Amino acid sequence: MKPYNTLTPAELEAERGALAAQHESYKGRGLKLNMTRGVPSLDQLDLSRGLLTCLGGDDYMAEGGLDCRNYGSLDGIPEMKRMFAGILDLEPDEIIVGGNSSLALMFDNIASNMSHGVRDGQAWRVQGQPKFLCPSPGYDRHFSICQYFMIDMIPVAMTAEGPDMDTVEKLVSSDPMIKGMWCVPVFSNPTGIVYSDETVHRIARLKPAAKDFRVYWDNAYAIHQLSGEKRRIPNLVRECAEAGNENMPLVFASFSKVTFSGAAVTCIASSKSNCSYIKQRLSMQTIGPDKLRQLMHAKFFGSADGVYAHMHKHAAILKPKFDLIEEMLSNSLGGLDIAKWTTPEGGYFVSVNAMQGCAKRIVQLCAEAGVSLTPAGATYPYGCDPRDSNIRIAPTFPPLEELRQAMEVFCLSVKLAGVEKQLALAAKA
Amino acid sequence: MKPYNTLTPAELEAERGALAAQHESYKGRGLKLNMTRGVPSLDQLDLSRGLLTCLGGDDYMAEGGLDCRNYGSLDGIPEMKRMFAGILDLEPDEIIVGGNSSLALMFDNIASNMSHGVRDGQAWRVQGQPKFLCPSPGYDRHFSICQYFMIDMIPVAMTAEGPDMDTVEKLVSSDPMIKGMWCVPVFSNPTGIVYSDETVHRIARLKPAAKDFRVYWDNAYAIHQLSGEKRRIPNLVRECAEAGNENMPLVFASFSKVTFSGAAVTCIASSKSNCSYIKQRLSMQTIGPDKLRQLMHAKFFGSADGVYAHMHKHAAILKPKFDLIEEMLSNSLGGLDIAKWTTPEGGYFVSVNAMQGCAKRIVQLCAEAGVSLTPAGATYPYGCDPRDSNIRIAPTFPPLEELRQAMEVFCLSVKLAGVEKQLALAAKA
Repeated sequence: MKPYNTLTPAELEAERGALAAQHESYKGRGLKLNMTRGVPSLDQLDLSRGLLTCLGGDDYMAEGGLDCRNYGSLDGIPEMKRMFAGILDLEPDEIIVGGNSSLALMFDNIASNMSHGVRDGQAWRVQGQPKFLCPSPGYDRHFSICQYFMIDMIPVAMTAEGPDMDTVEKLVSSDPMIKGMWCVPVFSNPTGIVYSDETVHRIARLKPAAKDFRVYWDNAYAIHQLSGEKRRIPNLVRECAEAGNENMPLVFASFSKVTFSGAAVTCIASSKSNCSYIKQRLSMQTIGPDKLRQLMHAKFFGSADGVYAHMHKHAAILKPKFDLIEEMLSNSLGGLDIAKWTTPEGGYFVSVNAMQGCAKRIVQLCAEAGVSLTPAGATYPYGCDPRDSNIRIAPTFPPLEELRQAMEVFCLSVKLAGVEKQLALAAKA
Repeated sequence: MKPYNTLTPAELEAERGALAAQHESYKGRGLKLNMTRGVPSLDQLDLSRGLLTCLGGDDYMAEGGLDCRNYGSLDGIPEMKRMFAGILDLEPDEIIVGGNSSLALMFDNIASNMSHGVRDGQAWRVQGQPKFLCPSPGYDRHFSICQYFMIDMIPVAMTAEGPDMDTVEKLVSSDPMIKGMWCVPVFSNPTGIVYSDETVHRIARLKPAAKDFRVYWDNAYAIHQLSGEKRRIPNLVRECAEAGNENMPLVFASFSKVTFSGAAVTCIASSKSNCSYIKQRLSMQTIGPDKLRQLMHAKFFGSADGVYAHMHKHAAILKPKFDLIEEMLSNSLGGLDIAKWTTPEGGYFVSVNAMQGCAKRIVQLCAEAGVSLTPAGATYPYGCDPRDSNIRIAPTFPPLEELRQAMEVFCLSVKLAGVEKQLALAAKA
């Protein structure tokens, strides 16, 4: 197929007619396919079936004679701290194990900094208008937290190596009201890229104008590669310490996409100083976390190595889905010059950049044909993609055959929106 | 024994000598007994052993085809909402099921009102200096939350019927910066009293100067009676609605002292309007609670009636402990006119009022003899008991024989501090 921008208006009209007819036929099929969110599939959940039964009626003691049924142990049981430390290449006393939601840890940390400030810092809210750098496209729930706390969001372009660091360095070093930056360093949401070593080095060596600037390092997909071994990037916590930015990074990790999304464990990792400050607040909030949920995970996996072995099983389920998407996008859209997309080696998403001004239309066309996508714009601060181009595909939940159907509809919609756009451009010209 | 205040200085000196010698002998015994916190005993935890194994590998579906392993279900699974609704005499849609800590729910609600205000209200923090009424003696962790958020605490006397309502009514109706009041209405912490019907009626009919005044109704011991059936008090939520204060009450409940203190479920209950507002924030914080923990509880108990039956087993373990305390306090301190104490019909504490200026000394004497108590003053805002009189006894964790030893030391210490005080008073006179 020739690029759409080389077709004559008549050819475009013919193509639109053919595509619209196909689209019409999909409408009649009553499809109901969901690719809105990064949700594990049922066969992924089944991988952790043993988690439900791995504790017998006498299994409630953690290391050190800790009765997991009772109160206490604010920062987690030793075996779970060690497991997270292993995965993040940190020490157990740099880990605070949380509940079932790492998002809740991020939300609470920002709430804390807004009202009380970082350790030895002033409350963010009393210093002026706090701002965050938001590499975009990014994760909509990060942006929602900023919006909730009325933190101004400054979009920063994402490259294949991570956030555009020239811009990040310039902004962070010049504006003391820039208090934070969101990062999903490994298999980023939604682009699926991995931050380059150079990007991590440069982040660690930032010279923030704000002494209380924090990097929110949401390492949600740290071990979620689609093949091979764990993808390693430089250790941000260590690099920051070397660069004199010891308290700058706040690392978040989660087992939500390792075991059960609804009933896993999470952690926040940072300098010992930050951890002790976070624990001060925590000691006002709770008498302790759900230690039995932690013990279950510790027993089920044994160690970080047990977790890695488990992740290979996830990869075996997920890789065919990502392969299918790449194949269908290439076959259907390749050469048309109406879309670019990422080919991630891990994570939960594929990011598609359609022609400018087409994303909302594509999502609408898909919805009409029974395929739900993440709303267009959701991957940008304030839900506003200035180019109306980016669409996040979340392929994990549907079974392979449903995914194929959904992607047929998606590719068709990208083409239909693309040809419509070319016609509009031609009419203007 | 005659009241200490009728003894001559010589008799007092003789008594002090005898008591000090006894105290000295205890010091040598190397006791290490802990009555600091309201922690369930091991045999209480054993009652819920079946909870650990009640889910098989195929048990993960809640009502309505809800897969508890995956994301979602922000306000809880239907069966758990119904169970809490049953216990609190409310409707399921007035319930939001939380994680394992009701304290965390209270903390977060106050954080939310401080920074964002109640629904349709201004943030508390921007209106001036927020204040809370703190019926005292009360629960130290409530007071810590206020202190953390720099909310001024106004102590209000506790009577046998609940907070002194004349004072509460006067203050709440006159000061628009009074934004909240802490209440533990059933088997109050630490006095163990139950709010009278009249007290609940009067709370429901408050006419707060602040439209955004909230009653934090921590019903932690709602079903924790030592004998007989569930202790019923008027339904605050319904009474408030009748009085036009629909959004005033925020009710908290927890299974922490029903099943496992470290791994239970909790809830916040309120008007539908408040619940929908709370869920707005919750949708920014998390993608859902630990539904498997909820499903476990729903399966283990079946219904609210199953919970009540379970609570009788707790009562059978706890009643002998509370009976022993009453017996030892009566036998040892009765007639000396140096202490008064409560005789609760439920809950986790006994409250002792020693002679003015003696509480710290008693706690110190106990510590010297190997018995740890809640710090004196902890039951008052800012850790400051103006009379230095109140001591909270937490008798649930130690086995009966250890409790007997601990109470021997306690009674001895109350007497020794009392005789010291009488001697000091005699010296002044």
